[in-house]
This record gives sequence, C-alpha cells and structure tokens, in this order.
Amino acid sequence: MKRPAVYHHGNLRQVLLEAAINLIGEVGPKAFTLREVARRAGVSHNAPYRHFQDKDELLAAVCTQGYHELTEAMLNACGSRATALQRLKKAGLAYVAFALRRPEHFRAMFDARSYTREQPDSAAARQESFEALLGLVKACQKERHLPTGEPHRLALLCWSMVHGVAKLATTGCLPYESEADVLKFAEFVINESLPVRARK
Amino acid sequence: MKRPAVYHHGNLRQVLLEAAINLIGEVGPKAFTLREVARRAGVSHNAPYRHFQDKDELLAAVCTQGYHELTEAMLNACGSRATALQRLKKAGLAYVAFALRRPEHFRAMFDARSYTREQPDSAAARQESFEALLGLVKACQKERHLPTGEPHRLALLCWSMVHGVAKLATTGCLPYESEADVLKFAEFVINESLPVRARK
Repeated sequence: MKRPAVYHHGNLRQVLLEAAINLIGEVGPKAFTLREVARRAGVSHNAPYRHFQDKDELLAAVCTQGYHELTEAMLNACGSRATALQRLKKAGLAYVAFALRRPEHFRAMFDARSYTREQPDSAAARQESFEALLGLVKACQKERHLPTGEPHRLALLCWSMVHGVAKLATTGCLPYESEADVLKFAEFVINESLPVRARK
Repeated sequence: MKRPAVYHHGNLRQVLLEAAINLIGEVGPKAFTLREVARRAGVSHNAPYRHFQDKDELLAAVCTQGYHELTEAMLNACGSRATALQRLKKAGLAYVAFALRRPEHFRAMFDARSYTREQPDSAAARQESFEALLGLVKACQKERHLPTGEPHRLALLCWSMVHGVAKLATTGCLPYESEADVLKFAEFVINESLPVRARK
C-alpha cells in the first residue's frame, strides 16, 4: 500500500496545493510544473489531473486561496468604529503583512499574472480584493479624507504604494530584518504618501 | 567548424549575457541554470565557465549592466537647470520606464536578490543606483521641497512608490496597455504621493 493518506482521505487537493506553494517558493510560479508538484506530493504524475486540468488551474487555486485570505485580512484589519482613513491605512498594513506571511501566495497572485491564463475563480477572487480596496477609498472620499476624483485611479495609487513596500521587503531589498520593522516602515510610507485631503 | 562566431570573435560573454536575459524572461531568475544558458547560447556546457564561475556570477553581470543603465537613466532624466524636485520626479519616471524597457533586467536586479549570492560588482552598482536616488532626495531637502529628517528612509519611500508602479505594470496588474499610459499613471502617483513640503 503506497501513500494511502493521499488517496484515501480525500485530501489530495490540499496536498497538491501545499506542494505547489512549496515549489513556487523554490523555483517561482513561472518555472513551476505540474509533474514536479506531483513528484513532491508523492503522487503519480497523473494524480493532479483529478483536481486540476493543468498548471494554470492549480496556480489559480493557490491564488484564489491567497486573494480570499488577503481580502479578509484587509477588511478585518480595523474595528468598525474606526474612521474610513484609519481603515484604509490598516488595510494597507494588512496587505504588507500578508505578503510577509504568505510570500509564495503573494508571488503567485501578482508575479504570475503576466504568464498564466487566469481562471474565472481566481479572477473573481482578485476582483473581490480590489473591490475591498476600492470600497475603502470611496469611504475615505465620502468622509473627505481623500481628494475627490476617480476612485479607481486612487485605489491603484494606494495599491502601488503598499505593493512596492511588500515587494521590496519580500525580495530582501529593504534594510529591515524583522516583520515589525518592515511594518513600521510601511506605516511611515502610508502616513507620508497618502494624498490626505488636509495636506492639500 | 561549429559556431565559430562565438569562440572566435571574443563575444562569448555578451552572447551568454543575452541568453541569460532571454532565459530570465521565460523561467525567471530563480529557475535559471547555467547549463540551460549554455544550451541556448549554442555553446558547450563548460563554455560559460570561461567567463562566469557560476550562475550567481552570470546573474550578477546581468544586474550590474542593469544598475548602470538605471543609474544613468535616473541621473540624465532631467536637464541640470531643473529644480531638485523636478529631477527627483523625472528620476522616478525613468525608473518605471527602465522597468518597462528592461523587464528581465528589472526582475534579476530586484526579484532575485533574496535567493542569489550577491557579487561585489553588482553590489557596488546597486549601491550606486541607490546613492543616485539618495542624492536627489538630499537635494530636495536642501531646496526645502521635501521634509527634513532621515534622507535614507525618505529615499526608501520614493523607491517603494515607483517600485510598486513598476512591478504592477510589468506583471500585467494595471489596466494600462501602452507605455505612455503607465508613465502617465506613474506621474499621477508621484505627484500625489511625494510628501512635498508645501502640502504639510
């Protein structure tokens, strides 16, 4: 009897997801192959096809998982009694913290987009994450914390800001070692760079 | 006579660099191997060792080339009669333009840092790029465009800002197709997010 846990307990999908995440950590989302995922999961090279049609589908499942966790982290970063601006700032910190906590998901979600076929599930989950940010930006505009004007472009600005910090941090480009120091820097960037209305 | 151009014209180093850049474009800087570079360059798998001790050294050569071009682009983005703030803003746009023009170099320079051994040459070239930015930030502080305080941290803030735009743009995350539209968005981000003094 070979590797019964995988086949008999119905957790093959999760086993494959975890093997995929580990492989992304080692070779990146681009060099990633379904065959190597199967090898690492200790299953036959046909086994992944029970759950995923191809590499793109498995990568999309990793991304979907990541987007859900990211959206939740952004939306729950603050108590409901906080102002819109406080919620937006905390969501930004949650984005950076997510990247530090889930570097493989983070890479698959954002670095892999240019060379994999996006799946409906992951596209929807990604849209949800963006909508969460957009909602926070609109709330800030409504509470007059942020300038009026196209909220979509402002949301992309906010995203760029925390994405830059998250990418530099997860690729070892920042001179900060601990998560706490990275988050302190992220807070500095957010506080200094957000085009908050009173400063205009 | 097999592939005489490579061996007889003394351009093996450049041929290997170009093969490396193409390979990075396909599999990323992490999955990249010296053997595959040799295969693509059409040379024996021992040939790369005439110029590079290992994969890290070849990647470092790509990065060094990239940092030099980036530094030059940042410093020459503006005429010398521009104000420090104009020069800093143009340098930020030059950073994003560099990422769009040299996506493989950009990935090797910044994404690969966490998993390759940095070489003295590329570390020096990278430091030079950062010093160019730091010089612009200090000039802005001197001309009272930017708030006083630790210039190093302010430089990291400026870097994060344009790095975020550049990464989102080169991974297909932004809704802009043309280089001109990405640069227009980058300009919006820079203008809205730089903690320019008069706004405080």
